[in-house]
Amino acid sequence: MTSFDSITAQLAAQAIELPSWAFGNSGTRFKVFSTPGTPRTIQEKIADAATVHRHTGLAPTVALHIPWDKVDDYAALRDFAGDHGLALGTVNSNTFQDDAYKFGSLTHTDAAVRQKAIDHHFDCIDIMHATGSRDLKIWLADGTNYPGQGDIRGRQDRLADSLAAIYERIGAEQRLVLEYKFFEPAFYHTDVPDWGTSYAQVSALGDRALVCLDTGHHAPGTNIEFIVAQLLRLGKLGSFDFNSRFYADDDLIVGAADPFQLFRILYEVIRGAGFGPDSPVAFMLDQCHNVEDKIPGQIRSVLNVQEMTARALLVDGTALRAAQDAGDVLGANGILMDAFYTDVRGDLAAWRETRGLPADPMAAYAASGYQAQIAADRAGGQQAGWGA
Amino acid sequence: MTSFDSITAQLAAQAIELPSWAFGNSGTRFKVFSTPGTPRTIQEKIADAATVHRHTGLAPTVALHIPWDKVDDYAALRDFAGDHGLALGTVNSNTFQDDAYKFGSLTHTDAAVRQKAIDHHFDCIDIMHATGSRDLKIWLADGTNYPGQGDIRGRQDRLADSLAAIYERIGAEQRLVLEYKFFEPAFYHTDVPDWGTSYAQVSALGDRALVCLDTGHHAPGTNIEFIVAQLLRLGKLGSFDFNSRFYADDDLIVGAADPFQLFRILYEVIRGAGFGPDSPVAFMLDQCHNVEDKIPGQIRSVLNVQEMTARALLVDGTALRAAQDAGDVLGANGILMDAFYTDVRGDLAAWRETRGLPADPMAAYAASGYQAQIAADRAGGQQAGWGA
Amino acid sequence: MTSFDSITAQLAAQAIELPSWAFGNSGTRFKVFSTPGTPRTIQEKIADAATVHRHTGLAPTVALHIPWDKVDDYAALRDFAGDHGLALGTVNSNTFQDDAYKFGSLTHTDAAVRQKAIDHHFDCIDIMHATGSRDLKIWLADGTNYPGQGDIRGRQDRLADSLAAIYERIGAEQRLVLEYKFFEPAFYHTDVPDWGTSYAQVSALGDRALVCLDTGHHAPGTNIEFIVAQLLRLGKLGSFDFNSRFYADDDLIVGAADPFQLFRILYEVIRGAGFGPDSPVAFMLDQCHNVEDKIPGQIRSVLNVQEMTARALLVDGTALRAAQDAGDVLGANGILMDAFYTDVRGDLAAWRETRGLPADPMAAYAASGYQAQIAADRAGGQQAGWGA
Amino acid sequence: MTSFDSITAQLAAQAIELPSWAFGNSGTRFKVFSTPGTPRTIQEKIADAATVHRHTGLAPTVALHIPWDKVDDYAALRDFAGDHGLALGTVNSNTFQDDAYKFGSLTHTDAAVRQKAIDHHFDCIDIMHATGSRDLKIWLADGTNYPGQGDIRGRQDRLADSLAAIYERIGAEQRLVLEYKFFEPAFYHTDVPDWGTSYAQVSALGDRALVCLDTGHHAPGTNIEFIVAQLLRLGKLGSFDFNSRFYADDDLIVGAADPFQLFRILYEVIRGAGFGPDSPVAFMLDQCHNVEDKIPGQIRSVLNVQEMTARALLVDGTALRAAQDAGDVLGANGILMDAFYTDVRGDLAAWRETRGLPADPMAAYAASGYQAQIAADRAGGQQAGWGA
Repeated sequence: MTSFDSITAQLAAQAIELPSWAFGNSGTRFKVFSTPGTPRTIQEKIADAATVHRHTGLAPTVALHIPWDKVDDYAALRDFAGDHGLALGTVNSNTFQDDAYKFGSLTHTDAAVRQKAIDHHFDCIDIMHATGSRDLKIWLADGTNYPGQGDIRGRQDRLADSLAAIYERIGAEQRLVLEYKFFEPAFYHTDVPDWGTSYAQVSALGDRALVCLDTGHHAPGTNIEFIVAQLLRLGKLGSFDFNSRFYADDDLIVGAADPFQLFRILYEVIRGAGFGPDSPVAFMLDQCHNVEDKIPGQIRSVLNVQEMTARALLVDGTALRAAQDAGDVLGANGILMDAFYTDVRGDLAAWRETRGLPADPMAAYAASGYQAQIAADRAGGQQAGWGA
Repeated sequence: MTSFDSITAQLAAQAIELPSWAFGNSGTRFKVFSTPGTPRTIQEKIADAATVHRHTGLAPTVALHIPWDKVDDYAALRDFAGDHGLALGTVNSNTFQDDAYKFGSLTHTDAAVRQKAIDHHFDCIDIMHATGSRDLKIWLADGTNYPGQGDIRGRQDRLADSLAAIYERIGAEQRLVLEYKFFEPAFYHTDVPDWGTSYAQVSALGDRALVCLDTGHHAPGTNIEFIVAQLLRLGKLGSFDFNSRFYADDDLIVGAADPFQLFRILYEVIRGAGFGPDSPVAFMLDQCHNVEDKIPGQIRSVLNVQEMTARALLVDGTALRAAQDAGDVLGANGILMDAFYTDVRGDLAAWRETRGLPADPMAAYAASGYQAQIAADRAGGQQAGWGA
Repeated sequence: MTSFDSITAQLAAQAIELPSWAFGNSGTRFKVFSTPGTPRTIQEKIADAATVHRHTGLAPTVALHIPWDKVDDYAALRDFAGDHGLALGTVNSNTFQDDAYKFGSLTHTDAAVRQKAIDHHFDCIDIMHATGSRDLKIWLADGTNYPGQGDIRGRQDRLADSLAAIYERIGAEQRLVLEYKFFEPAFYHTDVPDWGTSYAQVSALGDRALVCLDTGHHAPGTNIEFIVAQLLRLGKLGSFDFNSRFYADDDLIVGAADPFQLFRILYEVIRGAGFGPDSPVAFMLDQCHNVEDKIPGQIRSVLNVQEMTARALLVDGTALRAAQDAGDVLGANGILMDAFYTDVRGDLAAWRETRGLPADPMAAYAASGYQAQIAADRAGGQQAGWGA
Repeated sequence: MTSFDSITAQLAAQAIELPSWAFGNSGTRFKVFSTPGTPRTIQEKIADAATVHRHTGLAPTVALHIPWDKVDDYAALRDFAGDHGLALGTVNSNTFQDDAYKFGSLTHTDAAVRQKAIDHHFDCIDIMHATGSRDLKIWLADGTNYPGQGDIRGRQDRLADSLAAIYERIGAEQRLVLEYKFFEPAFYHTDVPDWGTSYAQVSALGDRALVCLDTGHHAPGTNIEFIVAQLLRLGKLGSFDFNSRFYADDDLIVGAADPFQLFRILYEVIRGAGFGPDSPVAFMLDQCHNVEDKIPGQIRSVLNVQEMTARALLVDGTALRAAQDAGDVLGANGILMDAFYTDVRGDLAAWRETRGLPADPMAAYAASGYQAQIAADRAGGQQAGWGA
């Protein structure tokens, strides 16, 4: 197996973007629990994200969600983030909370509604210019709940038109990433339900249009690492929304439900040249911390990605290829499992200390007093949430 | 095939309970859309439910949800309902929206929280005595999101203790029905996830403890009619929460996603003596009308149940049994399908008119002006919803 | 709603190809039951297929599976079929039953194995020239059972190369259709697991390479009619393998498990111009009759497709579009359901008789004596099966 | 965390029964690949099983499948096994490969067929007396493929009668364990599809009737460790059939698909007192080695169970309970994960050597020459398989 020392340079380059909304309250349709210390503003979210980065060295950027993170002055927000050691990352649009979008946004039959949704994306692009963001991420709630409610085919055509209008507006250094999702909030058909649809749509746009793969957005049993390998092969994997799930889009902490699956995904990322400074693939989290504390929830998440990345980097590729070519099923599987079963936590802890980071970020955060501080400081005001 | 005339007496006895909350706004964790005319009070919900019954003759009772439908005087509420031609039905408890229940209610490790949840059920039982309700329905959101978060075994034992305390309190004419659900809002383990658990728990309580089967609360691919047949055989099917789903607990209009499945379920109900005035099985709806109008959504729902009941009653049981015994696979299947494919809508329309009901309840409601009236009347105030 | 009379011309043009293997014995890995009268040769299979067509007028062609249907003289086989009123249709290759393919065929790491598999397809193309077949259908069992067993990415690249070699060989009037399948017989990863992969692969080949959609080859909950609409939109839907399923690739009679789903699929076919003489979409069955009689099983299947096609043709498209544009969820759904719930069986029976066909093909077959005849005639010999 | 030294006594008591049929050829309905050295007789299967035990110390018994392992003299077979250091274990009945059982066995409408199936179980009980086996394991293929084909309710009643007849015959020291399975080979309804059904049926029989949980026999997403905890709580978990799956009943090597799930299952076994010499729970494998070598496949399997058992024994139960009681979601989860992520392989290897076992059983087997020996010795004859 590859030695830990030989992979530290690669680990050092790892960056995982945090979603601003992970620091706000979230929940299910049944209940959203609030917790002391929850941010009221995007600035407080950024402060929390910076805390994650300070403890882990893994999270140098934070993604924005518009309008949840709307401010008057985005250049000032960029500076604020910079002062906290962070850059602003992907801008996420939102076309699912305005009454106008009840029956669709970019796919709506009404041209006026479509234009409203397109204009919202234009606003996001303007924000990106101010924040220095590269990626415009589009996740659509568009879909229908009942057979016959909408015209599946026509909606797809209108989606293509709307996306073309948006794509035309993005800058030469910017990218459009289109996320797909199996279902929810639409329960009969979803307009971008699978990687094939996202791939077909972005392929029609151009080189700077890519697919976003959210690890919780697939049908039961779907082999996600296959999709990773395929999209990398096709040159269309733009970014990951990491999280984990046992059932549907549970949005649990990445790696919590099936760490072996996360390992396999990361192995295919590395195998397909999707990892490293020259890779076009952005790593992001997209999670909900419904019952657990949010900041340590994010710390745990980036650590899970780091730990599984380390294991995946440890795979002895040469031996693996030889066993595969020999038809040695158990041997090949054993080589992969050997890396997965290797406990990298001690090595990672020691290496973190050489970089001026706490050996145990979870313990360090717990000992830092930050949680008590924000619980005390952030009294009053309206805690951030999804605004559903 | 059996003739339509021969089944009308059975159809005439059909009653489907409406959930008060179906008339309020509901949605997903992403957005709850409001609509003009949505009730603000339980009295307005009852008025809407009465409208459904007036158009269909199918919905003589309405279920309450506590605390959403809390009033000062339940006897007065019963009279109010009576004045509208309705009776009050099942009382549904709620132990998922108080902060105390974040980590469980009847299963909680803290005895004080468990007692609080038990006391809430005692309150519900008191209400039942005032409303004349027979059934206390318990659906628990209890569960965990992460492996290790809770002690699965201990939670089950505590659940048994809590249920025993509640069961002891119900009156001799009352029943406790325990609903199960595959997942949501808990995403790792749910404390009552399947019919087996509900069956084991209620069997430990006594004869007046029964299982509630919600048609949307199963794993993908589950054969629900099998569970119906089994629970009827075991004498433990207490009630149905009808709705339909393509994916998870989508809570769509019953029969909308898979009408053939609804037909099969109703066939097993009839086959197992679960239909008719002497049956212990209560028919209820439990649905969300996220994007469609609520009152016609409820009308459509009870009509779907009625239409599929009619088809299921048309099955020629004698011929079916003969084909089954002969190992005639295609013949037996053909007899069942013959009933399913029979278009009963014309016969039902004519029969409705003989009973003083509109032939086409959907059209009659649309023509009634009721929707415009409530939209105008119900200005201001706080529209009812789930309060999530 | 559209009138039945107005759709008969379209119904008259419907043709559904029968798979030769449906007439042989099939089963599960646990047991294959044999039945009296099962064909021993491709000629006997053709005779059975002709019987289906004689009773229904719906099945003018039969698909071959090579090597199961290998003969010395394919031109003679074509004449034999012609004498029975049939043409020979799609040629299906088989690269999953030779020991050489244990670890893959077109994707194998060993160039010699890949060439063997490519050569087999060349043989199939030669056969197609002799039989006059248009379509070469490729379904691959290629995949792996354990993580690490194979290199997912490399296998995809080799698949592309192998397909290119095959595509280059097909004639100007011929087509290559690539089928996808979620899983089985591979249980970890499958090399063509979803429509996206099939689409990406055939798009790289050229205009005469298309996707085959088998209705049983999807993850649980997948909205198949969406894929139909999407592939038609992309100009890449080549053919259907019809069957139905409750769980996995159950290969039950089409329409048996979820007739409403079949209706929705056919509606999208019609909506997307995939139906009719000018359509490039081929309708085929691919089923197993494990426990039911095979010939009536095939008759039932083509009738199910016909009945649901009729219902789908009855949808009032103009009214549907208006309701969709108006955001009338229940109205639009109701228009679709109205067509689905219409019992077309009487009209179809009467229309069949005007065409010289039996009103009730199932009853006519049962009365024909054919089953008893073949049971008597086909004594001895080796009954056809899958040769697993 | 608990120390490795403190768990070795528990590990030393672990025993996992091997299925005789795992050493024969198996496959899918598409193809069964044969391999050199595959046993031709039950004696050769026992010799292979003994080899697994010799290398691991984990597999002291082998399960029989009747009629696949039928011999004239079972006492002699017991002695043969004893000479190889093994005991004979569970006897598995087979009522799915006789033509008589096409439409059911213990559930059949025909009393003669039911009696035939009951008599087969009587034969199995006779064999158990000769072999000294404790458990009669019943897995039924009974079910139907099409709605209407069978009477679900009646079949359940007949099943109860048949099981009662069998249960009455088992000896005072013997047990009946009833396995459930979600689907396959039946594709519409299965007569024992879930733990609830098995539980209800065995509860009606008596104390020596228990449930067998096959880890591959559940609907997608099912929380299996919950069922383990529940059945242990109810005193009805009789045995495990271990294997793993990504999709359906894939019968892959246990722990191969989701090692974390196996860990969680074993944690609940230990938590619920299902592990150890006084536990009534039997550990068995039930797997297919379709593409990998069979003997090392079995070695890998028992090692996977051992490794995950060790990890599960390492969980610090006291700390875990404290974190659970405190509502410390991340803390509790972290305690569980700490044990799972601990690499026990080195400690296990060292401990094996202290017991006279090879440190690396896989490598030791590969170096032993056994595989080449049996490939050479077992020329000719009919390789064992499922006889499908």
